[in-house]
Amino acid sequence: MKPKVGVVLSGCGFLDGSEIHESVLTLLCLDEAGAAAMCTAPKGPQLHVVDHAQKAPASGTRDMFVEAARIARGRIQDLATLRAADLDAVILPGGFGAAKNLSDFASKGAAAVPHPEVARLLRDMHAAKKPIGAICIAPAVVAAALGRTVHPTLTIGDDQGTAAALVAMGCVHRECPVTGCVVDDANGIVSTPAYMFDASVGEVAMGVRKLVDAVLARVSRRAEAGGRA
Amino acid sequence: MKPKVGVVLSGCGFLDGSEIHESVLTLLCLDEAGAAAMCTAPKGPQLHVVDHAQKAPASGTRDMFVEAARIARGRIQDLATLRAADLDAVILPGGFGAAKNLSDFASKGAAAVPHPEVARLLRDMHAAKKPIGAICIAPAVVAAALGRTVHPTLTIGDDQGTAAALVAMGCVHRECPVTGCVVDDANGIVSTPAYMFDASVGEVAMGVRKLVDAVLARVSRRAEAGGRA
Repeated sequence: MKPKVGVVLSGCGFLDGSEIHESVLTLLCLDEAGAAAMCTAPKGPQLHVVDHAQKAPASGTRDMFVEAARIARGRIQDLATLRAADLDAVILPGGFGAAKNLSDFASKGAAAVPHPEVARLLRDMHAAKKPIGAICIAPAVVAAALGRTVHPTLTIGDDQGTAAALVAMGCVHRECPVTGCVVDDANGIVSTPAYMFDASVGEVAMGVRKLVDAVLARVSRRAEAGGRA
Repeated sequence: MKPKVGVVLSGCGFLDGSEIHESVLTLLCLDEAGAAAMCTAPKGPQLHVVDHAQKAPASGTRDMFVEAARIARGRIQDLATLRAADLDAVILPGGFGAAKNLSDFASKGAAAVPHPEVARLLRDMHAAKKPIGAICIAPAVVAAALGRTVHPTLTIGDDQGTAAALVAMGCVHRECPVTGCVVDDANGIVSTPAYMFDASVGEVAMGVRKLVDAVLARVSRRAEAGGRA
């Protein structure tokens, strides 16, 4: 049986949804490691739509789930119907969608509230001792859902203000290069900074690969321990 | 000096624009091989917009260039301003956008006409003996631009009707597995079937990597020959 890993998306494009490179690299590394990815996203309108050529607000509304389906090639499940029991692990790629749609971290900082369905899944995964991976700005979503209760150790790049917000939410912040990842072994939470740095796609791939491998190593350990690890 | 490779996009999503996985894998393999990618797309409306969750037509209009900028993270050049002299090679990822926006192959089949800017770039690249890579359905664009004059050998998967349309446009069709690529050495044109097969992203990555390596090997050979290879 292949391990089943939820990949939580928030749209399609780094300025208003999921960061596309990080999302595809997650799917690639999962497939290469023999895991089955299950793309998922909440239904509902994105906070807004951004013209990625002009990097300026655009008119219209777009739905997180419908746009995320572009990355998932149509194979995507409504997050509201996805349970921790369906998954062995969950990974959140970055993109501003994590801070705008999966939480309100982009506008609220340390006072951020997570999307209720994302919060439910992350808390249930953590309670079941199933690993969580968070890429780029997505550790802010983990912080909003779990920071004040489980005090995870996370990396979110080298911007001091962003790191300070995570600390204010109850987390420990650790800097890490784009090609590496930070493993919080006690909590089963892995993070990598990815495009929080001005990096190349090849560098981002190195960090995502390490994150995916660390998440799947934990899935294996848990399976060997009979699901109680 | 890094080789400069144009990556011609047509939107963002496999049903109405560029196939996202193939596009990102192209950027990844170019970066890993030490080449500089230059994302480009024509400006102008997509043929239509497709809801990728429902796989059904959606309302509204979207611009090829603006949507492609999502994949390019905003670093994208108008195809109308891009010259063959600016590039060492060009690669076209697939997605229905190649057959709907970069040509009208999706509706016209063997009578397809290429987008004029795409035709100009492909013909100028071929005339300058600079290599061309085409992924998935994008060989149909190459066929529309060059089939009747240079009779390239291409692969476009195992659908007999699609292959027959390429032959009717003057091409030779050769079947090839998703993990391989077909090299037309005389014309400097490389193709791989990618998601023309119902394949995994890891399998598609193997074919794209071979295509990128074959394209860049030809760039090196041409440089060693003083630009006349």
